[in-house]
Amino acid sequence: MNYPNKIKKQQNNIIYSNRGMSLENMINESNKYYLDEDKALIYKKPTPIGIVDVSYENHQKIIKKAYFQTQSTLDYNGIYKGKYIDFEAKETKNKTSFPLENIHPHQIKHINSVIHHGGISFLLILINNVVYLLKGEDFINFVNNNTRKSIPYSYIKEKGFLIKYNYLPVLDYLKVIDKIYNIKEINYEEENKNY
Amino acid sequence: MNYPNKIKKQQNNIIYSNRGMSLENMINESNKYYLDEDKALIYKKPTPIGIVDVSYENHQKIIKKAYFQTQSTLDYNGIYKGKYIDFEAKETKNKTSFPLENIHPHQIKHINSVIHHGGISFLLILINNVVYLLKGEDFINFVNNNTRKSIPYSYIKEKGFLIKYNYLPVLDYLKVIDKIYNIKEINYEEENKNY
Repeated sequence: MNYPNKIKKQQNNIIYSNRGMSLENMINESNKYYLDEDKALIYKKPTPIGIVDVSYENHQKIIKKAYFQTQSTLDYNGIYKGKYIDFEAKETKNKTSFPLENIHPHQIKHINSVIHHGGISFLLILINNVVYLLKGEDFINFVNNNTRKSIPYSYIKEKGFLIKYNYLPVLDYLKVIDKIYNIKEINYEEENKNY
Repeated sequence: MNYPNKIKKQQNNIIYSNRGMSLENMINESNKYYLDEDKALIYKKPTPIGIVDVSYENHQKIIKKAYFQTQSTLDYNGIYKGKYIDFEAKETKNKTSFPLENIHPHQIKHINSVIHHGGISFLLILINNVVYLLKGEDFINFVNNNTRKSIPYSYIKEKGFLIKYNYLPVLDYLKVIDKIYNIKEINYEEENKNY
Protein backbone atom coordinates (compact mmCIF):
# COMPACT_ATOMS: atom_id res chain seq x y z
CA MET A 1 0.00 0.00 0.00
CA ASN A 2 1.88 3.20 1.11
CA TYR A 3 0.42 5.09 -1.77
CA PRO A 4 2.01 8.54 -1.65
CA ASN A 5 5.51 7.03 -1.79
CA LYS A 6 4.56 4.61 -4.47
CA ILE A 7 3.10 7.26 -6.75
CA LYS A 8 6.19 9.37 -6.24
CA LYS A 9 8.38 6.44 -7.12
CA GLN A 10 6.34 5.73 -10.22
CA GLN A 11 6.60 9.35 -11.29
CA ASN A 12 10.36 9.25 -11.05
CA ASN A 13 11.03 5.86 -12.51
CA ILE A 14 8.31 4.87 -14.84
CA ILE A 15 6.52 7.67 -16.56
CA TYR A 16 9.72 9.23 -17.88
CA SER A 17 11.12 5.95 -19.08
CA ASN A 18 8.27 3.83 -20.39
CA ARG A 19 10.11 3.21 -23.59
CA GLY A 20 13.10 1.78 -21.77
CA MET A 21 11.07 -0.49 -19.51
CA SER A 22 10.86 -4.14 -20.42
CA LEU A 23 7.45 -5.65 -21.14
CA GLU A 24 7.97 -7.96 -18.17
CA ASN A 25 8.58 -5.05 -15.81
CA MET A 26 5.53 -3.18 -17.12
CA ILE A 27 3.37 -6.26 -16.53
CA ASN A 28 4.83 -6.90 -13.09
CA GLU A 29 4.19 -3.28 -12.07
CA SER A 30 0.63 -3.50 -13.39
CA ASN A 31 0.00 -6.79 -11.58
CA LYS A 32 1.29 -5.25 -8.35
CA TYR A 33 -1.16 -2.39 -8.85
CA TYR A 34 -4.04 -4.82 -9.46
CA LEU A 35 -3.02 -6.70 -6.31
CA ASP A 36 -2.74 -3.57 -4.13
CA GLU A 37 -6.12 -2.35 -5.42
CA ASP A 38 -7.60 -5.83 -4.91
CA LYS A 39 -8.74 -5.93 -8.54
CA ALA A 40 -7.12 -9.22 -9.52
CA LEU A 41 -4.56 -11.78 -8.38
CA ILE A 42 -2.12 -12.34 -11.20
CA TYR A 43 1.47 -13.49 -10.69
CA LYS A 44 4.44 -14.33 -12.85
CA LYS A 45 5.53 -17.91 -12.33
CA PRO A 46 9.14 -18.30 -11.22
CA THR A 47 11.51 -19.59 -13.91
CA PRO A 48 11.90 -23.34 -13.45
CA ILE A 49 15.44 -24.52 -12.83
CA GLY A 50 17.10 -27.92 -12.65
CA ILE A 51 19.32 -28.03 -9.57
CA VAL A 52 22.61 -29.93 -9.91
CA ASP A 53 24.44 -29.01 -6.72
CA VAL A 54 23.59 -27.36 -3.39
CA SER A 55 25.68 -26.63 -0.33
CA TYR A 56 25.29 -24.95 3.04
CA GLU A 57 26.83 -21.63 4.03
CA ASN A 58 26.10 -20.29 7.53
CA HIS A 59 23.24 -22.80 7.87
CA GLN A 60 21.64 -21.51 4.68
CA LYS A 61 21.04 -23.77 1.71
CA ILE A 62 22.72 -22.34 -1.37
CA ILE A 63 22.41 -23.46 -4.99
CA LYS A 64 25.92 -23.97 -6.39
CA LYS A 65 24.97 -25.24 -9.84
CA ALA A 66 21.69 -25.18 -11.74
CA TYR A 67 20.31 -24.90 -15.26
CA PHE A 68 17.43 -22.87 -16.59
CA GLN A 69 14.51 -25.00 -17.80
CA THR A 70 11.66 -24.22 -20.16
CA GLN A 71 8.27 -23.36 -18.69
CA SER A 72 5.74 -25.92 -19.94
CA THR A 73 2.88 -23.51 -19.23
CA LEU A 74 2.69 -19.75 -19.78
CA ASP A 75 4.48 -17.23 -17.57
CA TYR A 76 1.54 -15.47 -15.92
CA ASN A 77 -1.65 -16.78 -14.38
CA GLY A 78 -4.25 -15.91 -11.79
CA ILE A 79 -7.85 -14.90 -11.21
CA TYR A 80 -9.88 -11.87 -12.28
CA LYS A 81 -13.59 -11.46 -11.53
CA GLY A 82 -13.87 -15.19 -10.89
CA LYS A 83 -12.26 -16.05 -14.22
CA TYR A 84 -9.04 -18.01 -14.69
CA ILE A 85 -6.47 -15.91 -16.59
CA ASP A 86 -3.35 -17.40 -18.22
CA PHE A 87 -1.02 -15.55 -20.56
CA GLU A 88 2.44 -15.07 -22.01
CA ALA A 89 4.34 -11.84 -22.66
CA LYS A 90 6.84 -11.56 -25.49
CA GLU A 91 8.94 -8.78 -26.96
CA THR A 92 10.25 -8.82 -30.49
CA LYS A 93 12.72 -6.49 -32.17
CA ASN A 94 11.36 -7.67 -35.49
CA LYS A 95 9.32 -4.86 -37.05
CA THR A 96 7.27 -6.76 -39.60
CA SER A 97 6.29 -9.98 -37.83
CA PHE A 98 6.27 -11.96 -34.58
CA PRO A 99 8.45 -15.11 -34.88
CA LEU A 100 6.55 -18.20 -33.79
CA GLU A 101 9.71 -19.77 -32.34
CA ASN A 102 8.94 -17.49 -29.36
CA ILE A 103 6.09 -19.81 -28.35
CA HIS A 104 6.87 -23.50 -27.79
CA PRO A 105 4.57 -26.27 -29.05
CA HIS A 106 3.62 -27.32 -25.47
CA GLN A 107 2.65 -23.71 -24.79
CA ILE A 108 0.38 -23.67 -27.86
CA LYS A 109 -1.23 -26.86 -26.53
CA HIS A 110 -1.58 -25.19 -23.12
CA ILE A 111 -3.37 -22.14 -24.59
CA ASN A 112 -5.81 -24.50 -26.31
CA SER A 113 -6.44 -26.39 -23.06
CA VAL A 114 -7.03 -23.25 -20.99
CA ILE A 115 -9.68 -22.09 -23.47
CA HIS A 116 -11.21 -25.59 -23.53
CA HIS A 117 -11.50 -25.58 -19.71
CA GLY A 118 -13.29 -22.22 -19.71
CA GLY A 119 -10.36 -19.92 -18.94
CA ILE A 120 -9.04 -16.83 -20.69
CA SER A 121 -5.69 -17.13 -22.46
CA PHE A 122 -3.82 -14.61 -24.59
CA LEU A 123 -0.47 -13.18 -25.60
CA LEU A 124 0.82 -9.70 -24.83
CA ILE A 125 3.21 -8.79 -27.64
CA LEU A 126 5.56 -5.80 -27.61
CA ILE A 127 6.33 -5.00 -31.23
CA ASN A 128 7.31 -1.67 -32.82
CA ASN A 129 7.22 -0.06 -29.33
CA VAL A 130 3.53 -0.84 -28.80
CA VAL A 131 1.80 -3.62 -26.91
CA TYR A 132 -0.96 -5.73 -28.43
CA LEU A 133 -3.17 -8.30 -26.75
CA LEU A 134 -3.76 -11.21 -29.12
CA LYS A 135 -6.51 -13.57 -27.95
CA GLY A 136 -5.49 -17.21 -27.64
CA GLU A 137 -8.26 -18.08 -30.10
CA ASP A 138 -6.84 -15.80 -32.80
CA PHE A 139 -3.31 -17.01 -32.14
CA ILE A 140 -4.36 -20.69 -32.42
CA ASN A 141 -6.35 -19.90 -35.56
CA PHE A 142 -3.29 -18.42 -37.19
CA VAL A 143 -1.05 -21.34 -36.20
CA ASN A 144 -3.57 -23.92 -37.43
CA ASN A 145 -4.19 -22.25 -40.77
CA ASN A 146 -0.74 -21.07 -41.77
CA THR A 147 2.59 -22.67 -42.54
CA ARG A 148 4.47 -19.39 -41.93
CA LYS A 149 7.02 -19.27 -39.14
CA SER A 150 5.94 -15.84 -37.97
CA ILE A 151 2.74 -13.85 -37.52
CA PRO A 152 2.71 -10.74 -39.76
CA TYR A 153 2.41 -7.43 -37.94
CA SER A 154 -0.65 -6.72 -40.08
CA TYR A 155 -2.44 -9.76 -38.56
CA ILE A 156 -1.55 -8.61 -35.03
CA LYS A 157 -2.88 -5.12 -35.79
CA GLU A 158 -6.04 -6.50 -37.38
CA LYS A 159 -6.93 -9.16 -34.78
CA GLY A 160 -5.12 -7.83 -31.70
CA PHE A 161 -6.13 -5.10 -29.27
CA LEU A 162 -3.78 -2.21 -28.58
CA ILE A 163 -2.97 -1.71 -24.88
CA LYS A 164 -2.27 2.00 -24.56
CA TYR A 165 0.44 3.13 -22.14
CA ASN A 166 -1.13 4.48 -19.01
CA TYR A 167 -0.18 6.20 -15.76
CA LEU A 168 -1.34 3.69 -13.14
CA PRO A 169 -1.18 0.87 -14.00
CA VAL A 170 1.38 1.21 -16.80
CA LEU A 171 -0.42 -1.41 -18.89
CA ASP A 172 -4.10 -1.64 -18.02
CA TYR A 173 -4.68 -4.91 -19.89
CA LEU A 174 -7.61 -5.92 -17.66
CA LYS A 175 -9.57 -2.97 -19.03
CA VAL A 176 -9.15 -4.50 -22.49
CA ILE A 177 -10.08 -7.94 -21.13
CA ASP A 178 -13.32 -6.42 -19.79
CA LYS A 179 -14.17 -5.13 -23.24
CA ILE A 180 -13.30 -8.11 -25.41
CA TYR A 181 -14.37 -11.02 -23.22
CA ASN A 182 -17.85 -11.29 -21.89
CA ILE A 183 -17.01 -10.98 -18.19
CA LYS A 184 -19.81 -10.41 -15.75
CA GLU A 185 -19.16 -8.57 -12.49
CA ILE A 186 -19.17 -11.34 -9.93
CA ASN A 187 -21.57 -11.11 -7.06
CA TYR A 188 -19.32 -11.94 -4.13
CA GLU A 189 -22.25 -12.48 -1.76
CA GLU A 190 -23.74 -15.00 -4.15
CA GLU A 191 -20.38 -16.69 -4.72
CA ASN A 192 -19.63 -17.06 -1.05
CA LYS A 193 -23.01 -18.58 -0.26
CA ASN A 194 -21.90 -21.68 -2.10
CA TYR A 195 -19.08 -22.44 0.29
CA MET B 1 -0.57 -40.77 -22.95
CA ASN B 2 1.09 -44.21 -23.60
CA TYR B 3 -1.30 -45.75 -21.16
CA PRO B 4 -0.34 -49.41 -20.91
CA ASN B 5 3.22 -48.49 -19.92
CA LYS B 6 2.11 -45.85 -17.51
CA ILE B 7 -0.28 -48.13 -15.67
CA LYS B 8 2.42 -50.78 -15.44
CA LYS B 9 4.80 -48.21 -14.01
CA GLN B 10 2.23 -47.07 -11.48
CA GLN B 11 1.60 -50.67 -10.44
CA ASN B 12 5.26 -51.24 -9.77
CA ASN B 13 6.17 -47.99 -8.15
CA ILE B 14 3.17 -46.46 -6.52
CA ILE B 15 0.56 -48.85 -5.30
CA TYR B 16 3.02 -50.88 -3.25
CA SER B 17 4.69 -47.85 -1.77
CA ASN B 18 2.06 -45.19 -1.18
CA ARG B 19 3.22 -44.75 2.36
CA GLY B 20 6.73 -43.88 1.27
CA MET B 21 5.65 -41.39 -1.39
CA SER B 22 5.82 -37.71 -0.50
CA LEU B 23 2.60 -35.69 -0.59
CA GLU B 24 4.16 -33.54 -3.29
CA ASN B 25 4.84 -36.56 -5.49
CA MET B 26 1.33 -37.91 -4.99
CA ILE B 27 -0.13 -34.55 -6.01
CA ASN B 28 2.19 -34.20 -9.00
CA GLU B 29 1.25 -37.70 -10.20
CA SER B 30 -2.44 -36.91 -9.77
CA ASN B 31 -2.10 -33.59 -11.62
CA LYS B 32 -0.34 -35.37 -14.46
CA TYR B 33 -3.24 -37.83 -14.61
CA TYR B 34 -5.78 -34.96 -14.67
CA LEU B 35 -3.77 -33.32 -17.44
CA ASP B 36 -3.46 -36.51 -19.54
CA GLU B 37 -7.19 -37.17 -19.12
CA ASP B 38 -7.96 -33.51 -19.92
CA LYS B 39 -9.90 -33.17 -16.64
CA ALA B 40 -8.07 -30.15 -15.25
CA LEU B 41 -4.95 -28.02 -15.70
CA ILE B 42 -3.19 -27.80 -12.37
CA TYR B 43 0.54 -27.22 -12.00
CA LYS B 44 3.01 -26.80 -9.17
CA LYS B 45 4.74 -23.44 -9.37
CA PRO B 46 8.53 -23.62 -9.59
CA THR B 47 10.38 -22.65 -6.40
CA PRO B 48 11.41 -19.01 -6.69
CA ILE B 49 15.15 -18.36 -6.44
CA GLY B 50 17.30 -15.27 -6.17
CA ILE B 51 20.15 -15.54 -8.64
CA VAL B 52 23.50 -14.14 -7.52
CA ASP B 53 25.87 -15.37 -10.20
CA VAL B 54 25.61 -16.92 -13.67
CA SER B 55 28.22 -18.01 -16.18
CA TYR B 56 28.39 -19.68 -19.57
CA GLU B 57 29.61 -23.21 -20.22
CA ASN B 58 29.54 -24.48 -23.80
CA HIS B 59 27.23 -21.58 -24.77
CA GLN B 60 24.75 -22.58 -22.06
CA LYS B 61 23.80 -20.19 -19.28
CA ILE B 62 24.48 -21.82 -15.92
CA ILE B 63 23.52 -20.60 -12.46
CA LYS B 64 26.64 -20.60 -10.26
CA LYS B 65 25.10 -19.14 -7.11
CA ALA B 66 21.50 -18.67 -6.03
CA TYR B 67 19.32 -18.67 -2.93
CA PHE B 68 15.92 -20.24 -2.35
CA GLN B 69 13.16 -17.68 -1.83
CA THR B 70 9.75 -17.99 -0.21
CA GLN B 71 6.71 -18.36 -2.44
CA SER B 72 4.36 -15.42 -1.78
CA THR B 73 1.41 -17.38 -3.17
CA LEU B 74 0.54 -21.06 -2.76
CA ASP B 75 2.38 -23.87 -4.53
CA TYR B 76 -0.33 -25.17 -6.87
CA ASN B 77 -2.81 -23.42 -9.10
CA GLY B 78 -4.83 -23.93 -12.24
CA ILE B 79 -8.29 -24.38 -13.68
CA TYR B 80 -10.96 -27.05 -13.18
CA LYS B 81 -14.41 -26.91 -14.81
CA GLY B 82 -13.97 -23.19 -15.43
CA LYS B 83 -13.07 -22.52 -11.79
CA TYR B 84 -9.81 -21.07 -10.52
CA ILE B 85 -8.10 -23.50 -8.10
CA ASP B 86 -5.27 -22.47 -5.76
CA PHE B 87 -3.87 -24.63 -2.97
CA GLU B 88 -0.96 -25.60 -0.75
CA ALA B 89 0.21 -29.07 0.27
CA LYS B 90 1.90 -29.68 3.60
CA GLU B 91 3.12 -32.73 5.48
CA THR B 92 3.54 -32.81 9.22
CA LYS B 93 5.18 -35.48 11.39
CA ASN B 94 3.26 -34.04 14.31
CA LYS B 95 0.48 -36.49 15.29
CA THR B 96 -1.79 -34.24 17.32
CA SER B 97 -1.79 -30.95 15.42
CA PHE B 98 -0.75 -29.05 12.30
CA PRO B 99 1.75 -26.27 13.17
CA LEU B 100 0.65 -22.93 11.72
CA GLU B 101 4.27 -21.89 11.10
CA ASN B 102 3.89 -24.09 7.98
CA ILE B 103 1.77 -21.38 6.36
CA HIS B 104 3.22 -17.87 6.08
CA PRO B 105 1.14 -14.73 6.80
CA HIS B 106 1.24 -13.62 3.14
CA GLN B 107 -0.09 -17.05 2.17
CA ILE B 108 -3.00 -16.67 4.60
CA LYS B 109 -3.74 -13.31 2.99
CA HIS B 110 -3.52 -14.96 -0.44
CA ILE B 111 -6.06 -17.68 0.51
CA ASN B 112 -8.44 -14.94 1.65
CA SER B 113 -7.99 -13.03 -1.62
CA VAL B 114 -8.55 -16.09 -3.82
CA ILE B 115 -11.86 -16.76 -2.09
CA HIS B 116 -12.80 -13.08 -2.33
CA HIS B 117 -12.17 -13.12 -6.09
CA GLY B 118 -14.40 -16.15 -6.58
CA GLY B 119 -11.78 -18.89 -6.67
CA ILE B 120 -11.39 -22.12 -4.71
CA SER B 121 -8.55 -22.31 -2.20
CA PHE B 122 -7.65 -25.05 0.27
CA LEU B 123 -4.88 -26.96 2.01
CA LEU B 124 -4.01 -30.61 1.50
CA ILE B 125 -2.53 -31.83 4.77
CA LEU B 126 -0.73 -35.15 5.24
CA ILE B 127 -0.98 -35.99 8.94
CA ASN B 128 -0.92 -39.40 10.65
CA ASN B 129 -0.42 -41.03 7.22
CA VAL B 130 -3.72 -39.72 5.85
CA VAL B 131 -4.50 -36.73 3.63
CA TYR B 132 -7.19 -34.19 4.49
CA LEU B 133 -8.51 -31.35 2.38
CA LEU B 134 -9.18 -28.33 4.60
CA LYS B 135 -11.19 -25.60 2.88
CA GLY B 136 -9.58 -22.16 2.88
CA GLU B 137 -12.68 -20.83 4.62
CA ASP B 138 -12.31 -23.25 7.54
CA PHE B 139 -8.59 -22.61 7.75
CA ILE B 140 -9.09 -18.82 7.86
CA ASN B 141 -11.87 -19.22 10.41
CA PHE B 142 -9.55 -21.13 12.70
CA VAL B 143 -6.72 -18.61 12.33
CA ASN B 144 -9.03 -15.65 12.97
CA ASN B 145 -10.68 -17.14 16.04
CA ASN B 146 -7.77 -18.83 17.81
CA THR B 147 -4.52 -17.75 19.37
CA ARG B 148 -3.09 -21.29 19.17
CA LYS B 149 0.00 -21.84 17.05
CA SER B 150 -1.29 -25.09 15.61
CA ILE B 151 -4.55 -26.58 14.35
CA PRO B 152 -5.58 -29.61 16.47
CA TYR B 153 -5.95 -32.87 14.56
CA SER B 154 -9.51 -33.06 15.91
CA TYR B 155 -10.39 -29.80 14.08
CA ILE B 156 -8.89 -31.14 10.84
CA LYS B 157 -10.87 -34.38 11.19
CA GLU B 158 -14.08 -32.50 12.00
CA LYS B 159 -13.90 -29.77 9.32
CA GLY B 160 -11.63 -31.41 6.75
CA PHE B 161 -12.44 -34.00 4.09
CA LEU B 162 -10.47 -37.24 3.93
CA ILE B 163 -8.89 -37.91 0.52
CA LYS B 164 -8.72 -41.70 0.30
CA TYR B 165 -5.72 -43.27 -1.43
CA ASN B 166 -6.69 -44.43 -4.86
CA TYR B 167 -5.30 -46.32 -7.83
CA LEU B 168 -5.40 -43.73 -10.61
CA PRO B 169 -5.00 -40.95 -9.67
CA VAL B 170 -3.26 -41.63 -6.35
CA LEU B 171 -5.07 -38.71 -4.70
CA ASP B 172 -8.36 -37.94 -6.42
CA TYR B 173 -8.85 -34.59 -4.69
CA LEU B 174 -10.97 -33.18 -7.53
CA LYS B 175 -13.64 -35.76 -6.71
CA VAL B 176 -13.81 -34.26 -3.23
CA ILE B 177 -13.86 -30.74 -4.71
CA ASP B 178 -16.88 -31.76 -6.81
CA LYS B 179 -18.72 -32.84 -3.69
CA ILE B 180 -17.94 -30.00 -1.31
CA TYR B 181 -17.99 -27.00 -3.63
CA ASN B 182 -20.99 -26.24 -5.74
CA ILE B 183 -19.36 -26.75 -9.14
CA LYS B 184 -21.56 -26.92 -12.18
CA GLU B 185 -20.43 -28.89 -15.21
CA ILE B 186 -19.42 -26.20 -17.64
CA ASN B 187 -21.08 -26.13 -20.98
CA TYR B 188 -18.10 -25.71 -23.27
CA GLU B 189 -20.26 -24.79 -26.27
CA GLU B 190 -21.86 -22.00 -24.26
CA GLU B 191 -18.51 -20.84 -22.86
CA ASN B 192 -16.86 -20.68 -26.25
CA LYS B 193 -19.66 -18.65 -27.77
CA ASN B 194 -18.49 -15.71 -25.68
CA TYR B 195 -15.09 -15.52 -27.32
